[in-house]
Amino acid sequence: MKQSTLFGRTLREAPAEAQTPGHRLMLRAAIARPLAAGLYTWLPLGFRVAEKVEQIVREEQNRIGAQEMEMPVLTPAEPWKETGRWESLEPITFRTADHNGREFMVSYTHEEFVHLHAKQEIQSYRQLPAIVYHFQSKGRDEARPRAGLLRVREFVMKDAYTFDADQAGLEKSYEAEHGAYARTFARMGLDAISVESDTGAMGGDVAHEFQVLTEVGEDRIAICTNCDYRANLEKATRKIATQRSPDAIPAPTPVATPGATSIEALEKALGLPASAFLKTLLLRTKDGVVAVVLPGDREANEPKLRKLLDVPSIQFAKDSDFAAVGGVAGFVGPVGLRNARVLMDVSLEPRGYVAGANKQDTHLRDVVPGRDFGGERVDVHDVREGDACPRCGGRLEIKRGVEVGNIFAYGTYYSTKLDATFLAEDGTRRPFVGGSYGIGIGRSVQTIIETHHDERGIIWPPSVAPFHVHLIALPSSDPDVRAKSEALVAALEREHVEVLYDDRDESAGVKFADADLIGIPLRVTVSKRTLKEDKVELKPRARADAELLPQGDAAGRIAAIVRGWPDLPEMGNR
Amino acid sequence: MKQSTLFGRTLREAPAEAQTPGHRLMLRAAIARPLAAGLYTWLPLGFRVAEKVEQIVREEQNRIGAQEMEMPVLTPAEPWKETGRWESLEPITFRTADHNGREFMVSYTHEEFVHLHAKQEIQSYRQLPAIVYHFQSKGRDEARPRAGLLRVREFVMKDAYTFDADQAGLEKSYEAEHGAYARTFARMGLDAISVESDTGAMGGDVAHEFQVLTEVGEDRIAICTNCDYRANLEKATRKIATQRSPDAIPAPTPVATPGATSIEALEKALGLPASAFLKTLLLRTKDGVVAVVLPGDREANEPKLRKLLDVPSIQFAKDSDFAAVGGVAGFVGPVGLRNARVLMDVSLEPRGYVAGANKQDTHLRDVVPGRDFGGERVDVHDVREGDACPRCGGRLEIKRGVEVGNIFAYGTYYSTKLDATFLAEDGTRRPFVGGSYGIGIGRSVQTIIETHHDERGIIWPPSVAPFHVHLIALPSSDPDVRAKSEALVAALEREHVEVLYDDRDESAGVKFADADLIGIPLRVTVSKRTLKEDKVELKPRARADAELLPQGDAAGRIAAIVRGWPDLPEMGNR
Repeated sequence: MKQSTLFGRTLREAPAEAQTPGHRLMLRAAIARPLAAGLYTWLPLGFRVAEKVEQIVREEQNRIGAQEMEMPVLTPAEPWKETGRWESLEPITFRTADHNGREFMVSYTHEEFVHLHAKQEIQSYRQLPAIVYHFQSKGRDEARPRAGLLRVREFVMKDAYTFDADQAGLEKSYEAEHGAYARTFARMGLDAISVESDTGAMGGDVAHEFQVLTEVGEDRIAICTNCDYRANLEKATRKIATQRSPDAIPAPTPVATPGATSIEALEKALGLPASAFLKTLLLRTKDGVVAVVLPGDREANEPKLRKLLDVPSIQFAKDSDFAAVGGVAGFVGPVGLRNARVLMDVSLEPRGYVAGANKQDTHLRDVVPGRDFGGERVDVHDVREGDACPRCGGRLEIKRGVEVGNIFAYGTYYSTKLDATFLAEDGTRRPFVGGSYGIGIGRSVQTIIETHHDERGIIWPPSVAPFHVHLIALPSSDPDVRAKSEALVAALEREHVEVLYDDRDESAGVKFADADLIGIPLRVTVSKRTLKEDKVELKPRARADAELLPQGDAAGRIAAIVRGWPDLPEMGNR
Repeated sequence: MKQSTLFGRTLREAPAEAQTPGHRLMLRAAIARPLAAGLYTWLPLGFRVAEKVEQIVREEQNRIGAQEMEMPVLTPAEPWKETGRWESLEPITFRTADHNGREFMVSYTHEEFVHLHAKQEIQSYRQLPAIVYHFQSKGRDEARPRAGLLRVREFVMKDAYTFDADQAGLEKSYEAEHGAYARTFARMGLDAISVESDTGAMGGDVAHEFQVLTEVGEDRIAICTNCDYRANLEKATRKIATQRSPDAIPAPTPVATPGATSIEALEKALGLPASAFLKTLLLRTKDGVVAVVLPGDREANEPKLRKLLDVPSIQFAKDSDFAAVGGVAGFVGPVGLRNARVLMDVSLEPRGYVAGANKQDTHLRDVVPGRDFGGERVDVHDVREGDACPRCGGRLEIKRGVEVGNIFAYGTYYSTKLDATFLAEDGTRRPFVGGSYGIGIGRSVQTIIETHHDERGIIWPPSVAPFHVHLIALPSSDPDVRAKSEALVAALEREHVEVLYDDRDESAGVKFADADLIGIPLRVTVSKRTLKEDKVELKPRARADAELLPQGDAAGRIAAIVRGWPDLPEMGNR
């Protein structure tokens, strides 16, 4: 392809709002352009990358026997209502209606619909296991789209769905997808680790995310420095040493704490560390007020709380709620609360704490959890750096990551709700046992950029590079340079090497800067200088040094390098 | 692929609501399934066909230098408002809004957005011409989805857009796309003819549709039996012999026509043919009442009227409109109307007609157009079988067709509205001169079925068949048959032959019936009987006769047949 007519203009500077290195380079290299906040167009260069990422995903899905299909973007409301997700997904989805008032969701995911298909197409256990998948646009009404393609409002997702006859089958299918994901990300140059994760809106208990560790990520991951425990903080737990029950701790006594309504103020007022205090959060739910009690040095983990309370978002108590349970804002504590459901975080130790007295400007000393107040023992705290691994007791580190894929084993969560059954070997009808498996294409592409660049531009892994070779004619106005360049382009293309040919009337400086920015693996320069020696220059983007190749050999030598790259997707005629 | 685990069940009978042969076969052969009225899922077999159709489209677009990209499904309202299409497309589109109230359209087409991109990416005439395209889901709120994939509410369209510096450039680009379309449809086995068409919602003056003539089509096409004139009835005109001006026709006189409020009733009442009468339609528009006058034997053509009046839909006059212009319902006529815009169809001859008298139970004889009433001369009638070709005067035939593609040369219609300009060679800024070019993938697939089947099932053209070979093991329970079948499948796949392998535990009758229904070009049977002679049976779907191939040769012979098929799309690794 000739660069002079390429639809997509490189930019010297990224727009000021670009937030991460990958976001800046994605815009500067004309990979994608925003049409509106969180809505992006793939320009031709970026489209080629996205297609290669997609093809790698496809090949690895096909390898495990998955069948490609395609479900629509607009999905009718009724099945969503049967599973209860029409309501629960409302805050994050786009809806529409036809002119007769019939409602549709811009697809968020397709569990409901693939189950309806399975019900119709799969009659007997003999057709199981089955894995189907599609690439389809998803809509997410993100309040805050961010960092280019990392968090958007529309994106293409590969979502796969497995159907099995029983739990053992599901575990096998889940393992097969887990393996496919590991190969998929490795082939596209992403160092993705599998971490335990919350199941969120998907239902079920078992879920993993594939995370690429990078500072630009939104997710926080707990990683054991000793064993292979890895979990999203939304799900991560820690080992808590069992402690002796308290004895000889005096009964609670009041202490005056005028104006000290935060842990920080209490630390200053009483000269004690944060861990000496109890933190009591009052929440409102449709079933009444919930008090969450944690040590003063621990943060509540919102996803854990949401899951525990089975609510889409956390709502803090209002004045009327404080009044109803006898709490005093700023001085609330678990002792003396009435009519509240009390959640005692497992981090609480059997020792004395300073807690709010539910009285203005007053706290209580020597409040012992379990002795002076009771409640349900729950895990709702954030794990933090240095905590003990729940599996081996080793030291946990916390890193940032971008979630590029997720997999869920939800079992019969959807099939029972939708009455999606098959004829089992014993003649009974049984619900399908299933899982779903997602990969975001755009997020993968930008994550590759986030982790493969230098100060001058992108450095594409060969498997997903928009072209294999960036061929630069210098100057393209010179008839001999032009003729030799075009002959080399033709020779390379005959060998199935993909070439972006810079035939523009631009300076060497501009052309080399663009080549570094766009980041195609091999730069080949045909110039008056090199032709004088009957040579062309070859420089890999990832290396500092160039070499001169004899002109006659160049196409063969370069094609051999390209053929030597492992795991290239087979794209057909594109 | 093994048929035992294929996701997609063939049906002995089509659902009763299936309306056309292609609709019935598409459902029976598990090509696609409805999720709701007009919303379809491609099952794996159908997906393979759709992908091949898409790849043929892609290869022919790439051949003329078009660049693939991808714009989103959700499109922000503002650019639609700038071109006026937010309002005009309202009746036929789906809209949504985010939780802040910002509005989006589920994309209907992408002229607005590709112009915004062109404005940003193309700076100079040196980058022109440019052609870009994408495959993207479109939403259409069709009041009456019909005939399976022929008229749906969501479908993937390939839409291409050309940008040129001037009209001459546009004509060249239009011609290039016209040629690409001809090759595209021919390669997928469709005998599509190019016909002149209305520009509808697209703007501009020049447009063509590619129509496949079949009785199941919704469109009516006028075709000259003498020259190459072909036009959709929405656009078709005819040659009208010039006629002598009237003389010696007496002045209009009333005739009593009690209760005769239709042309049919008048024919009966006065014993005259329909052509003796005038038909006067009163319409309401925002600029007042419009009277359309045609000969009594001609139908008004709604698309022509819509275009002339520049309205999205035709609205008939209400009682108050009749009163305002002095018309009497059932007896309305052009003579004596006040304050109405009168449109005189070009079919009107300069002779006496019987017309409504705008008086209850009364008509007028000897009403001469031009003498007794005036108005604008317009072409708003339906051309019909036997009319004279506007180009050569030959006889026009009317046939039904399915529109599988359309192309529009709208020029600067969008670029002026959106201020999308480039730097011209003379240093001025000029608006892009453009066109757009659509192909519906699903409609193409079903049209292929409509025109390629027999009473037993589909007969796929090889270029778009879901597989090349349907290999049938008989019985698959026999170990030798199974082993030899699997060896042959493996040998064929090594030769890049795509095989659907019927390994199911079913009777020969069921398997052969399914093979005929699914319609893969080559059926290969491996049975105890054929193996006794060390042979396998080969039967093309399109032919009645089978032949026996020596087992050892079979893979090579079959692969040679497949390699001999012209114009197969290069699919890569699918």
